[in-house]
Amino acid sequence: MNNVEQRLYQLGITLPAAPAPIAAYRPWVIAGDLLFISGQLPMADGSLRFTGKVGRDIDADQGKEAARISAINGLAQAKAALGSLDRIIQCVKLTGFVNSASGFTAQPAVLNGASELLADVLGEAGRHARAAVGVSELPLDAAVEIEFIFQVSV
Amino acid sequence: MNNVEQRLYQLGITLPAAPAPIAAYRPWVIAGDLLFISGQLPMADGSLRFTGKVGRDIDADQGKEAARISAINGLAQAKAALGSLDRIIQCVKLTGFVNSASGFTAQPAVLNGASELLADVLGEAGRHARAAVGVSELPLDAAVEIEFIFQVSV
Amino acid sequence: MNNVEQRLYQLGITLPAAPAPIAAYRPWVIAGDLLFISGQLPMADGSLRFTGKVGRDIDADQGKEAARISAINGLAQAKAALGSLDRIIQCVKLTGFVNSASGFTAQPAVLNGASELLADVLGEAGRHARAAVGVSELPLDAAVEIEFIFQVSV
Repeated sequence: MNNVEQRLYQLGITLPAAPAPIAAYRPWVIAGDLLFISGQLPMADGSLRFTGKVGRDIDADQGKEAARISAINGLAQAKAALGSLDRIIQCVKLTGFVNSASGFTAQPAVLNGASELLADVLGEAGRHARAAVGVSELPLDAAVEIEFIFQVSV
Repeated sequence: MNNVEQRLYQLGITLPAAPAPIAAYRPWVIAGDLLFISGQLPMADGSLRFTGKVGRDIDADQGKEAARISAINGLAQAKAALGSLDRIIQCVKLTGFVNSASGFTAQPAVLNGASELLADVLGEAGRHARAAVGVSELPLDAAVEIEFIFQVSV
Repeated sequence: MNNVEQRLYQLGITLPAAPAPIAAYRPWVIAGDLLFISGQLPMADGSLRFTGKVGRDIDADQGKEAARISAINGLAQAKAALGSLDRIIQCVKLTGFVNSASGFTAQPAVLNGASELLADVLGEAGRHARAAVGVSELPLDAAVEIEFIFQVSV
């Protein structure tokens, strides 16, 4: 068991099978030493765990959990891409889209569910640049969607 | 005629002149071996072919056609940037913003209009990572906006 | 005083202290020769200068000023990351999210506040690829949020 997977084990996190794209694209592409991961939804066991608008259908804490699950799916994609998560040098950038009720402006708190998970699992290498925005609709009415850029050893 | 242009010809696609930016920015920038292309709209012959919200003003099939046109404009920008489309190594990432009616959640189906076009034209090199989100407003009330990252030979 | 700072001085622009992230992420990450800067808001002197929806709560000119302030904050982050802004080779890409009233479609004019500032300060190196979209909600009800990618000398 390598270092990052040991850390996942300590945290009690089991990486799922990497979710398949829900349309005609790839879950990840590597260009040079950058790994681009497609927008991840809060899928677990093949279905969406959190749907609807944060601030109306679910609250910010549930949104944060949705972001955490999306980040776990991002790590699952990274493992599929890299073989070993120990090849991650740095989580570079995360863009988080929060399905937001009118007047809901706590997107940063929601996205912290992903950011804190990545820092917990990867340590300093998990601390990334980020943009968080609120959008009016997401695929399948998902509560959040998060995309990732990692720098990796090649 | 090079390989990619031959393929465009077989598919009956004529690349338009690369649309000019609608404000104070550049249509594309190359950094190292990455080509970043500005957000493309479904412009054809100098005007927007599809405006309004998908799921209200136009249907998902029309949205998909809007995404296809935006991807053709992305290829036109890539040709302007590269001289020859044969310099494309890989379409790395596509971010698609769909001007979405309230309750419209089929953004992935809409964006497939772009993803399928790129795979048809570029083959395996056209298969990319992707994020698809629904937004409440787009420039000039365009139905979709798509930005692209390509890895290119330098 | 280096070249870019001399230019800032001529333009009467004082870079503020780089605003701290409003949650659990980093303001910037460098990967290879690319500098990724987190989404910047129109913060000045520790508070948001422009909030609400462009086209309803504030007008497009105020939105443009909000974009300009966000870009100044982006440069402040770049200076914190690089030590000297003379290390900037090229502003590669800017993604601008405009908190948009229903029916407001002049996102490009709003984002020009950022694009023109970068061209004024950095000259040709400030001219970038861009995507501009309208979103329904932004963190803290900010009027705009802008993220940046710069190519830098390493």
